[in-house]
Amino acid sequence: MSDSAASQRLASVQSHLQVAACSSKEEPRKKTPIESMTEEREKATFDVRELTYYLDGGEKNTKIREKFMMELERDPTFRMYDMYDVTKDEIRVRTMEKFRTIVHYVSAEPVPIFTMRMQTISLIDPGFWTRFGVHYGLFFGALRGSATSAQFSHWVSKGALALNGMVGCFAMTELGHGSNVAGLETTATFDAASDQFVIHTPSVTATKWWIGGAAHTATHCVVFAQLIVRGKRYGTKSFVVQLRDTRTYTLMPGVNIGDIGKKMGRDGIDNGWIQFTNVRIPRTNMLMKHTKVSRAGEVKEPPMAQLTYGALIQGRVAMVVDSGNIAKKALTIAGRYAAVRRQFQSNPHDVQETKLIDYAIHQYRLMPLLAMAYAFHFTGVETQKLYDNLMDKLESTQPDDAGLQDTLETLKETHATSAGLKAFCTWSTLSAIEACRQTLGGHGYSAYTGLATTYNDFAVHCTWEGDNTILTLQSGRYLVSCYREALAGKIQPEGVDYLNSLDTLLTQGCAVKSNEEILDFNIIQQAWGVVTANVVKKAGDDFAESLKQGMNPEAAYEECSQARLAAAKIHSFGYVFRRFAQAVKTAPEGLRPVLTKVCLLYGLYSIEQNAGFFLQYRYFTPSQMDYVRAQVNVLCRDVRQEYIPLIDAFNYSDYMINSPLGVYDGNVYEKYFDQVKRQNPVGQPHPYLPLIQSLLRRDIEDDEPLEEDDEDDE
Amino acid sequence: MSDSAASQRLASVQSHLQVAACSSKEEPRKKTPIESMTEEREKATFDVRELTYYLDGGEKNTKIREKFMMELERDPTFRMYDMYDVTKDEIRVRTMEKFRTIVHYVSAEPVPIFTMRMQTISLIDPGFWTRFGVHYGLFFGALRGSATSAQFSHWVSKGALALNGMVGCFAMTELGHGSNVAGLETTATFDAASDQFVIHTPSVTATKWWIGGAAHTATHCVVFAQLIVRGKRYGTKSFVVQLRDTRTYTLMPGVNIGDIGKKMGRDGIDNGWIQFTNVRIPRTNMLMKHTKVSRAGEVKEPPMAQLTYGALIQGRVAMVVDSGNIAKKALTIAGRYAAVRRQFQSNPHDVQETKLIDYAIHQYRLMPLLAMAYAFHFTGVETQKLYDNLMDKLESTQPDDAGLQDTLETLKETHATSAGLKAFCTWSTLSAIEACRQTLGGHGYSAYTGLATTYNDFAVHCTWEGDNTILTLQSGRYLVSCYREALAGKIQPEGVDYLNSLDTLLTQGCAVKSNEEILDFNIIQQAWGVVTANVVKKAGDDFAESLKQGMNPEAAYEECSQARLAAAKIHSFGYVFRRFAQAVKTAPEGLRPVLTKVCLLYGLYSIEQNAGFFLQYRYFTPSQMDYVRAQVNVLCRDVRQEYIPLIDAFNYSDYMINSPLGVYDGNVYEKYFDQVKRQNPVGQPHPYLPLIQSLLRRDIEDDEPLEEDDEDDE
Repeated sequence: MSDSAASQRLASVQSHLQVAACSSKEEPRKKTPIESMTEEREKATFDVRELTYYLDGGEKNTKIREKFMMELERDPTFRMYDMYDVTKDEIRVRTMEKFRTIVHYVSAEPVPIFTMRMQTISLIDPGFWTRFGVHYGLFFGALRGSATSAQFSHWVSKGALALNGMVGCFAMTELGHGSNVAGLETTATFDAASDQFVIHTPSVTATKWWIGGAAHTATHCVVFAQLIVRGKRYGTKSFVVQLRDTRTYTLMPGVNIGDIGKKMGRDGIDNGWIQFTNVRIPRTNMLMKHTKVSRAGEVKEPPMAQLTYGALIQGRVAMVVDSGNIAKKALTIAGRYAAVRRQFQSNPHDVQETKLIDYAIHQYRLMPLLAMAYAFHFTGVETQKLYDNLMDKLESTQPDDAGLQDTLETLKETHATSAGLKAFCTWSTLSAIEACRQTLGGHGYSAYTGLATTYNDFAVHCTWEGDNTILTLQSGRYLVSCYREALAGKIQPEGVDYLNSLDTLLTQGCAVKSNEEILDFNIIQQAWGVVTANVVKKAGDDFAESLKQGMNPEAAYEECSQARLAAAKIHSFGYVFRRFAQAVKTAPEGLRPVLTKVCLLYGLYSIEQNAGFFLQYRYFTPSQMDYVRAQVNVLCRDVRQEYIPLIDAFNYSDYMINSPLGVYDGNVYEKYFDQVKRQNPVGQPHPYLPLIQSLLRRDIEDDEPLEEDDEDDE
Repeated sequence: MSDSAASQRLASVQSHLQVAACSSKEEPRKKTPIESMTEEREKATFDVRELTYYLDGGEKNTKIREKFMMELERDPTFRMYDMYDVTKDEIRVRTMEKFRTIVHYVSAEPVPIFTMRMQTISLIDPGFWTRFGVHYGLFFGALRGSATSAQFSHWVSKGALALNGMVGCFAMTELGHGSNVAGLETTATFDAASDQFVIHTPSVTATKWWIGGAAHTATHCVVFAQLIVRGKRYGTKSFVVQLRDTRTYTLMPGVNIGDIGKKMGRDGIDNGWIQFTNVRIPRTNMLMKHTKVSRAGEVKEPPMAQLTYGALIQGRVAMVVDSGNIAKKALTIAGRYAAVRRQFQSNPHDVQETKLIDYAIHQYRLMPLLAMAYAFHFTGVETQKLYDNLMDKLESTQPDDAGLQDTLETLKETHATSAGLKAFCTWSTLSAIEACRQTLGGHGYSAYTGLATTYNDFAVHCTWEGDNTILTLQSGRYLVSCYREALAGKIQPEGVDYLNSLDTLLTQGCAVKSNEEILDFNIIQQAWGVVTANVVKKAGDDFAESLKQGMNPEAAYEECSQARLAAAKIHSFGYVFRRFAQAVKTAPEGLRPVLTKVCLLYGLYSIEQNAGFFLQYRYFTPSQMDYVRAQVNVLCRDVRQEYIPLIDAFNYSDYMINSPLGVYDGNVYEKYFDQVKRQNPVGQPHPYLPLIQSLLRRDIEDDEPLEEDDEDDE
């Protein structure tokens, strides 16, 4: 080493030491992420635990849910920390591993308790929830709803309830038919000679498609097919068809099955396609609780087909409940991160950057969604009650009962309400998940922060078990029909009772002396009543006009479909607000002040989002609307004060949230970094190293032309 | 075999034959999917090819794009048919494989042509587009924008342009800092003794995060760090730091790097995190075009820091262009499927079910989005022009020029416009992708139908290179400042020229004699002008009020952030409508009638979506608004007539679309089924067979209690 080089080296070492000394200089004290979170909890004006009990329907339920969370977290088959990295094959293996545990609880727990367990699971692993639901909800549910009691006993004895010896799936949709179940192409032709049905897929579009569990794991299937007896078609009925040998798992003769493959989410479900080529099943495999085919080929159809529709509603109610639960999960992640993440200094004198949640715009992004999560929670509870009440009535009603008409009315109302709410709540929740994801900034794009997967898993709710647009139109059709009944003087049920006072309501304005009076549940409820009555009237009048012009009812409904869609959406806003307001009124006294604010925010924000209708029908004046807008901001700021306690009340454990940005203690950066390093250890070899090396060392002349040789020119 | 069994068997065979005969009975002739598509093409009232030329900016460009599509489709490294199934590791290998081809074109093609090639690629493989852009757009762009000419030559000689010997990445964001670049924590401390900078990561939150290409493939990095000289901080500057040995690819001393891991989309990019621990680089590795640090440690700062902002705008403009292009792709898939998919019969006498697109509600779901795709296309073209114009001015302007003020005005306008449009267009397009996905019904959830991946890839646009909310607020701040200038009498540029006639505009109503006159570009433009002027005034007045109350400007801007957000969004609607209307006016005569309809639909639909503002500021009366709503439906029906030709004009090949539901010929079911079977061949073994078998054959007594032994009771 030369002298000069040595002295330079020495200087460098010295400066190293200087730099090290420099960086240990003391800075003004800043709050750690954990401290930033802790201070939020001190702002609660209410008892968080009491709110949790209220949300859960009592302390006992909270304890049960906490027991589930602990059991699942400690169950090795339910490990979730690495779920964002597993492949489609791996996640399917995991799904099957979980079956054994959960099958145990099916028989060990009463149904309401087991239902709560499954709700907890739906938040942790939606793919497993669905795969398990395919057997118990769809396959077994179809047996319970459509089999005779002898048939039901038969399949239970084969292991359908214990999930022992058989596992089922449910084949309704086809490649070419989803919503139009009546248009399914698969045929079930009665062969009197052999006393069998022949199940057949006549075309590519008739291929059963999206069948959860069919690709690899189901042995039996409830198949929807066109019943054909003696050449006559009787519509779509259901049949139990064995798909695989229950020991070897080889396909049964005539059954061809493949994997649907990669999906947007819920890859834990092995969705498959099925083609039947003249597959013969015993006649008694047709589920004959309603329509019956005798040995002689006589078809007996049920007196009251409507009474069979109850089963369809269950899935929709479950999705309304799931919407609230998933919204709460998304808000827990986005909300907690916003209490810890700091960016920019709103005041240059602050020692520390400002929390995201202290920006007005961030409050405006999150607080209305938090209010929505509460609104959907209470709506889910009420919708479940509506459904339970319906099922009680259906089970106790016989076709010749005196109470039949009442039961049918309840059915109609519950059907339309659950259809409209399923669409409304799943659409709103999907948007909320994305909005929450975006509030995480760039980190929302990481798989580990959880909301990307939540979005992809949840998105299917908008199209399955009734496409949302079609369900919304059905709900709109119900509203039109209620409107026409109301015009004819028939009193309408609670859900649409604004139709009972059309005369006064349609032209009613907001008659308050001062704007402050708008901050009142009754005014907001009236506002929604007036506006909903008007948009329903618009749809109903369009419909009537089309009838007058000579259209048949179907064409007239089609003609007013845009108005129906608008009517159903507006109706849902008002409906959900009322569920929330009702829940606030019946809440324990100590919770009412905070819940009142949250509920007012939901009401006013929804009005702001639909301002056009409130101005159009002149319920609010432009200046009142300005007041509403301003109050939304005020309420956002107000709810923000104790929004972390409001989120804590959801009582989701870190394990359930499965996002380092949503951890309870607020230590987001370290946990996020740990997660990234655990899933992607440093120094791992990577498969494209040779590709880069050869790229960077390539012979550049490859791209250059050959030097022209002068001799060639001669 | 007994006689009876034999005769039963015979009967069974006979009935088989009967069934077979039965199913070959002739049915009324139905249109095939291909025929369903073909008939749509016959409805064109315009020359599709001419529209393609107009969209592409001339026949020559169309030919170039078609050449690209062919070259890419035939390039084995660009095979896309299996991309929905590849793992993160595989897709990263694919990304590197593509580099070799595209690097060839970098040097072989002029920049404008190569830019067109990259736009084509952005539609095919957005992950590759980004990874490639990390080197040329970000790393090389930073050199071009921030290096002195000597530094630039140095890095070019090292292979930065040819991508030979080195490949770069760009380390701006940190775990704890994204939007607030000035708040980055990484330090670059000048060590005069060694004439070096010491690059250092002082904390976990200072870890460079999301750095595209850092995880495995980059050798060099432009690092943003706080310049510290003699203990004084000079703000964030950029430094070239070598990350890896360019031959062995081992990490340089003091550099620690890991993989960020799984993301929502664009997994082809190896995003990484980087920690620097006292890494020493030569002083001359600081990019010194603007700020300079001399050998003696003297810091010279640039006279006009604003002139360096131009570079930020490029990425935003690219995203505006990408929004239009991706919207066109989503509409091609959803639109073509809607012409072929049939569901339900709207008329019971039809021999065939009704096409989705013949339902009013489906038209209402898709036609406004098609109009939006056109609007965004033309907006992209104009924004690109705005940017090119700015860059010309920036390159020819010196700080002491007479034209400096004009250049700064253009910079300010382009900066705000591109920020607002980036947010507006990416948000709207993301929603449009999801809306299109949902119109595919259940099939939209399949990975193979393309829109799930499109959504996941596109979503990042909303948060990177300027978070959308922050950009929208910036745009709103610009509008407030323009409004205040206008009040002070200063004439405002074209983009905000509604501010030049505030006196008359603010209270103007729609003065038409009959509603039909609303169907006019000038009226719609005036409508947006009036409403935008009012919402901007609202934000401006809120701001002024806060100032009056003694707030500092920053606090006042914060106070009116919700009003700024609304102002920027409404402004963007009007701005985009004007770009579209302008493009219609200058279109070839034969295209004007159809484009006029599409443009009117965009204008009226946007008004309907924002009805609250038009009623609030009384530009439209409620009855005029009813007319607008009705006309949206009429225009949807109208545009539907030739919507397939309008989609065909986008001229995206089946290869680019990469969705069996969007194929040109309409043969969707066969191609979809083929794709599913090719990617998931039947009869493949699956890894969870033993799990199911043991589940279904388990000893049920496991779950049951031991029988009590009487003897124990004694």
